[in-house]
Amino acid sequence: MSATEFALYTFGPSSAAYRARIALNLKGLSPEFRSIHLVKDGGAQHTAAYKQVNPQGLIPTLLHEGHAIGQSLAIIEYLDEKFPEPPLLPPDPYGRARVRQLAYMVACDIHPINNLRVRQYLTATLKADQAQSEAWYAHWITLGFAAMEAMVSGAAETGKFLHGDAPTLADICLVPQMANARRFKVPVDAFPALVRIDESARALPAFAKAAPENQQD
Amino acid sequence: MSATEFALYTFGPSSAAYRARIALNLKGLSPEFRSIHLVKDGGAQHTAAYKQVNPQGLIPTLLHEGHAIGQSLAIIEYLDEKFPEPPLLPPDPYGRARVRQLAYMVACDIHPINNLRVRQYLTATLKADQAQSEAWYAHWITLGFAAMEAMVSGAAETGKFLHGDAPTLADICLVPQMANARRFKVPVDAFPALVRIDESARALPAFAKAAPENQQD
Repeated sequence: MSATEFALYTFGPSSAAYRARIALNLKGLSPEFRSIHLVKDGGAQHTAAYKQVNPQGLIPTLLHEGHAIGQSLAIIEYLDEKFPEPPLLPPDPYGRARVRQLAYMVACDIHPINNLRVRQYLTATLKADQAQSEAWYAHWITLGFAAMEAMVSGAAETGKFLHGDAPTLADICLVPQMANARRFKVPVDAFPALVRIDESARALPAFAKAAPENQQD
Repeated sequence: MSATEFALYTFGPSSAAYRARIALNLKGLSPEFRSIHLVKDGGAQHTAAYKQVNPQGLIPTLLHEGHAIGQSLAIIEYLDEKFPEPPLLPPDPYGRARVRQLAYMVACDIHPINNLRVRQYLTATLKADQAQSEAWYAHWITLGFAAMEAMVSGAAETGKFLHGDAPTLADICLVPQMANARRFKVPVDAFPALVRIDESARALPAFAKAAPENQQD
């Protein structure tokens, strides 16, 4: 890659790429989007060419200043350090910890367990049927959202968004996970604080423009 | 909790708690350790008393200055902000991104998929037998370590540790995951850079003192 390339490897439905797109929009940045179709022809993420960019064969990857950065949360923390305005983390260490805790509750403990490659392993190797695969998916979302709801509802730190009245890294993780819940018809009525915050966030142009339904791919 | 309590909810074999213990040792901090036995009597992490501290019912949780912080990586970033020396992240944004990427390759894409609660779901709900459960465990470690090895071996940024010659957040994630691989007899010969770095890190007192075999519980 060249030092002047500024690009995001993305795929519309990928919720990890969705996070990176939201962060880029909040920062007012418009890298070139390079589509990596995760399903067609066995998945473009598995090609040798893409693994040169990201050895993990996952999206998103950001190219910036001659570097390739994988892992959506590493990308977002990087963007927040390189382009500080508007901040995606609060200024105080405890606030930052609370936001990161909420973000990781999605990014570590819901999303990777439900990710495409895990569901493929469940069905192809463990021979789970569709009902079992859907129950698996719903189980981890419901468990994770229940904990987030307990942490957020009634907490003094919660505002219009998960932490205060401006969107943070935590909301950037919540919104794509909520989209996944809707896509897989997982009920979310038991999580009214999360539903309210998700709606507030999706009303912002930076979130709306990043949504899967508004992508070319 | 009181504003003066400084405590870590931990359990010897938990690799997420292991990460937090390493970071505390590197910073020269010695909070009170409160043991949460994850298996005995159905698991102390599921009690109402513990869920008051951490609604997710996972360990570790750090109590500090009247706050309860869950998620090991949120704890470690918090410690690094509150107690900056020695730093657990490099000073430059790209270096920080590379370290976080490597950390998340373990903390998002290996460990949560193999975590106790997921293995319990596999066996109890999906009726996976022991061989299938062990194959699952080995699969995600092998896949994740192969990507890390490809990223690290031969890279200019790699030194005595995953990033340069001082331990970072990335090594703090690698070492407990390597311990899990050994515990479950997953071969790691194909990852010589990771094996070398794991050995370098475990030679440091901060890592050794945090190891499961050196815990009271």
